[in-house]
Amino acid sequence: MEIDKVTVIGAGYMGSAITFPLSDNGITVNLWGTWLDDEIISACKKGPHPKLQKKLPAKVKLFYSKELKEALVDVQHLFIAVSSQGFLQVFNKILDNNMQECSFLVLTKGFVDDGGRVKSISTAARDILRSRGLQEARGLVGDRSPKGKYKWVSIGGPVKAIELSHKIPSATIYGTSDSHLRDSVKSFETSYYRISTFDEVTGIELSSAFKNVYAIGLGICDGIFKSKGQKEYHNLCAILFSQSLEELSIIVEKAGGDANAVWHLAGVGDLYVTGRSGRNREYGELVGRGKGPMDAYNMMLEADRLVEGYDTLKLGRQWIQEKDERLIERLPLLKSLFSIIFHENDPESEITRFVKGYPYP
Amino acid sequence: MEIDKVTVIGAGYMGSAITFPLSDNGITVNLWGTWLDDEIISACKKGPHPKLQKKLPAKVKLFYSKELKEALVDVQHLFIAVSSQGFLQVFNKILDNNMQECSFLVLTKGFVDDGGRVKSISTAARDILRSRGLQEARGLVGDRSPKGKYKWVSIGGPVKAIELSHKIPSATIYGTSDSHLRDSVKSFETSYYRISTFDEVTGIELSSAFKNVYAIGLGICDGIFKSKGQKEYHNLCAILFSQSLEELSIIVEKAGGDANAVWHLAGVGDLYVTGRSGRNREYGELVGRGKGPMDAYNMMLEADRLVEGYDTLKLGRQWIQEKDERLIERLPLLKSLFSIIFHENDPESEITRFVKGYPYP
Repeated sequence: MEIDKVTVIGAGYMGSAITFPLSDNGITVNLWGTWLDDEIISACKKGPHPKLQKKLPAKVKLFYSKELKEALVDVQHLFIAVSSQGFLQVFNKILDNNMQECSFLVLTKGFVDDGGRVKSISTAARDILRSRGLQEARGLVGDRSPKGKYKWVSIGGPVKAIELSHKIPSATIYGTSDSHLRDSVKSFETSYYRISTFDEVTGIELSSAFKNVYAIGLGICDGIFKSKGQKEYHNLCAILFSQSLEELSIIVEKAGGDANAVWHLAGVGDLYVTGRSGRNREYGELVGRGKGPMDAYNMMLEADRLVEGYDTLKLGRQWIQEKDERLIERLPLLKSLFSIIFHENDPESEITRFVKGYPYP
Repeated sequence: MEIDKVTVIGAGYMGSAITFPLSDNGITVNLWGTWLDDEIISACKKGPHPKLQKKLPAKVKLFYSKELKEALVDVQHLFIAVSSQGFLQVFNKILDNNMQECSFLVLTKGFVDDGGRVKSISTAARDILRSRGLQEARGLVGDRSPKGKYKWVSIGGPVKAIELSHKIPSATIYGTSDSHLRDSVKSFETSYYRISTFDEVTGIELSSAFKNVYAIGLGICDGIFKSKGQKEYHNLCAILFSQSLEELSIIVEKAGGDANAVWHLAGVGDLYVTGRSGRNREYGELVGRGKGPMDAYNMMLEADRLVEGYDTLKLGRQWIQEKDERLIERLPLLKSLFSIIFHENDPESEITRFVKGYPYP
């Protein structure tokens, strides 16, 4: 099935960047900004997107936060590109508009704190749908019902928004158990936006979330060594890189997902990009250089640079604990990163200790 | 079994660097230089190693090329760290000394041209042993005989020699089907030189060889974009990185090896390092910037910077052809790289064409 109209929820980096390949496919795109995005929408009506620093495609229709209802008219495919902090509220608002049938294409990464319980994004969504007595989304975790009216796709892979908006060749992976939807998402493909598909959500969703945490680790490694004036320490980074993927696959399997997701774009590919550049890596580098983890987080936040991996580490650690309290022992790198960020343990001592125990069973 | 004496064959970067963890374990180390290394041995007798720019550990015994027999006295464990071009000649010379029993720990990466037939290093070694009527090496490809007097370990993983010599934490992987030897190699471990083991040779050997080729690809990608003044093109590099590993796993499986090697230090880890820095990457960048592939190779060779990935691409392409003439169709990135380097196709056009076809089945 060809998809000819979509609404993008969230006008930040990624929500705005995705409008480029969509528009290039002749798809009608409504871009809705949350209450935090009203200034962005205003700016985009006059000139370039203030974050992407590029004008959005001409045919994209812009909607202020108060215009959600209008933005959803006649739309059955929603990209959700808000931050994990905003997810619960925004998802509820969408459902308030009596969407009868909808596919959610979800770019939000991380975990949510749903009244004291930590949940993955897709689990939180499922629970909201259930609490509203709605038919659950096909493709959601633990739900393979072919009759659901609400479908779910988790999107992962190495796609930096700025680059996508400049049409630098990028590849992404869409994970859903709905085979029809897997075919349909090919409607979004362009010569510069290549789409792989994967047959489940969990592997993609958890890889996308936790890779931000492990990218902090790669940044820490860089920070430690740069602060010593060392230019060459690639060997150590490679241990962290390899171990990060090992641990991602353990996490995905524990959650009942397919760890093959890790060894492809959502894990290997995305960690490669996120460890090379971006906020999580930059944050890690500050910490590795000796900046206090909380100070560094707040400093970046003030500069409007939210470090998602920080929140994912905090909530993800709790989520791991709730899954299986012994699981953390199989994730020594994650455990070290948690000690550095939340117990303020010395980064170099922690990383050295981690390496001395390598390889882990 | 503890190992207390080894000889290292080849006094270049890696052969010399490995003497550091060995010495730190109290192991007696003979370092033998080939006929190309005599100047290095002379220099090391007086001061720092000219390539590593660091003095070797005091107890390392240095041997000139004419002193091979002396270097092999009472030794049953040989690290082989010559280039692939030198392998056949050196391996024959070693056997000329009537080694009765020996474990070969092999750092040489790539392929050899054995009288017109392209062979992996371990296959070439096996054939030499056979031709001499010697008992085949336990742990060699296709040979699981428990009685062989000649054992084989292929060593892989993300270990840059300079960093190892400066004791930057590094992790390596030793692959052999001999379980006793897998235990014994733990004798080489230090706090900064961590050793994983793997139960076969092929996965390690082929990952180590072909990762040099794919690192050229990552360099080409950097070169193309840097030459355009683009700073951000991580998304594209990540496609290449992920696809490189996919193709490595196809190659290893086709050769009857265990592709799990790819998803660990020998593939993921080593490609990460080799794509970040080093000669193969640097060569790729020159080509990506528009330098002729042959000129760039010769220019680097004149500066004593052999680009191993170049030779591995040439011989590896032939080896692939001999394995299965349709196999190359499942390796579209390798095919593109071969076109760029040996047919002098335009790098950007080739990479663009490769991306347009992504994802590959």
